[in-house]
Amino acid sequence: MRKISLFIATSLDGYIAKPNDDLSFLKLVEKEGEDYGYAEFTNTIDTLIVGRKTYDHVLREIGPSHYDNGQRDVYVITRTERPQAGRTIFHTGNISELVKRLKSEKGKNIYCDGGAEVIDELLKQDLIDEFIISVIPVLLGDGTRLFKDGRPEQILELISVKAFETGLTQLHYKKKK
Amino acid sequence: MRKISLFIATSLDGYIAKPNDDLSFLKLVEKEGEDYGYAEFTNTIDTLIVGRKTYDHVLREIGPSHYDNGQRDVYVITRTERPQAGRTIFHTGNISELVKRLKSEKGKNIYCDGGAEVIDELLKQDLIDEFIISVIPVLLGDGTRLFKDGRPEQILELISVKAFETGLTQLHYKKKK
Repeated sequence: MRKISLFIATSLDGYIAKPNDDLSFLKLVEKEGEDYGYAEFTNTIDTLIVGRKTYDHVLREIGPSHYDNGQRDVYVITRTERPQAGRTIFHTGNISELVKRLKSEKGKNIYCDGGAEVIDELLKQDLIDEFIISVIPVLLGDGTRLFKDGRPEQILELISVKAFETGLTQLHYKKKK
Repeated sequence: MRKISLFIATSLDGYIAKPNDDLSFLKLVEKEGEDYGYAEFTNTIDTLIVGRKTYDHVLREIGPSHYDNGQRDVYVITRTERPQAGRTIFHTGNISELVKRLKSEKGKNIYCDGGAEVIDELLKQDLIDEFIISVIPVLLGDGTRLFKDGRPEQILELISVKAFETGLTQLHYKKKK
């Protein structure tokens, strides 16, 4: 069955952004030619799930190519209906039903690209199968937490750990069966 | 100058205890003969700082030997004055003044053994020099967070990462100068 994976960066103190969606801490680990396995990871997926706020933010900051590269279905989780644009589908229904349907279909894996609200919803439903978490060597002190309070307990299995020259550490877990 | 270090275990989602000070998740990584570097670490320290609630909890759960082994000074941070007992000193004054005084004195390193409130106070004052954080492969979903909101930003330097057979990952950082 298709897996759904997180591939996300967090500060050591667990924030995925500073207040006001400030992602500048990612610059601490930017290095020419080093993508921390991102291309390799995205080769294994053909479907992307992303929250509307994160989607808009990425469109603004990086441009449409990040999502609409013609090679994958993008489901934007939103409360506001919008017509489909290419392979980008604006999904206003139940997120766990969407994920369950996608998992039951054939295809490569599914990538949850955030944000924190969508991740929280999926975690509450125990729907994330793999966690690839890049820990940036910084304490941000405040911001948007990767993990909100009030989720079920979930035991994980460590798959691998990689340390990079920049100080980034990548922890890879899967859900324990 | 003497360093002050954290040596602490957290779940992947950043909790050092489940609600009601439940530490049972640590059993997930218990293994005969494996102390995850604790003895080696405590050989480098001669002074321990601990919050009163954590102190009482450990006394109850493990017994006095954890602190009062005659080989180190133990400073219990508390709001209630109590007479010194052996090398255990109940400190009701300012914590950052205590740490600054201890750091200026000669001796081995200083170990901050928690809990979350004392750690938070030290982080707010930028007084922790090293972080040895053992990540337990579990999402607890709720509990006492290692890192509270509202601290200053602090850039760290990765010293090492160790992965253990049990799935515990130990991240070792120092404060970037």
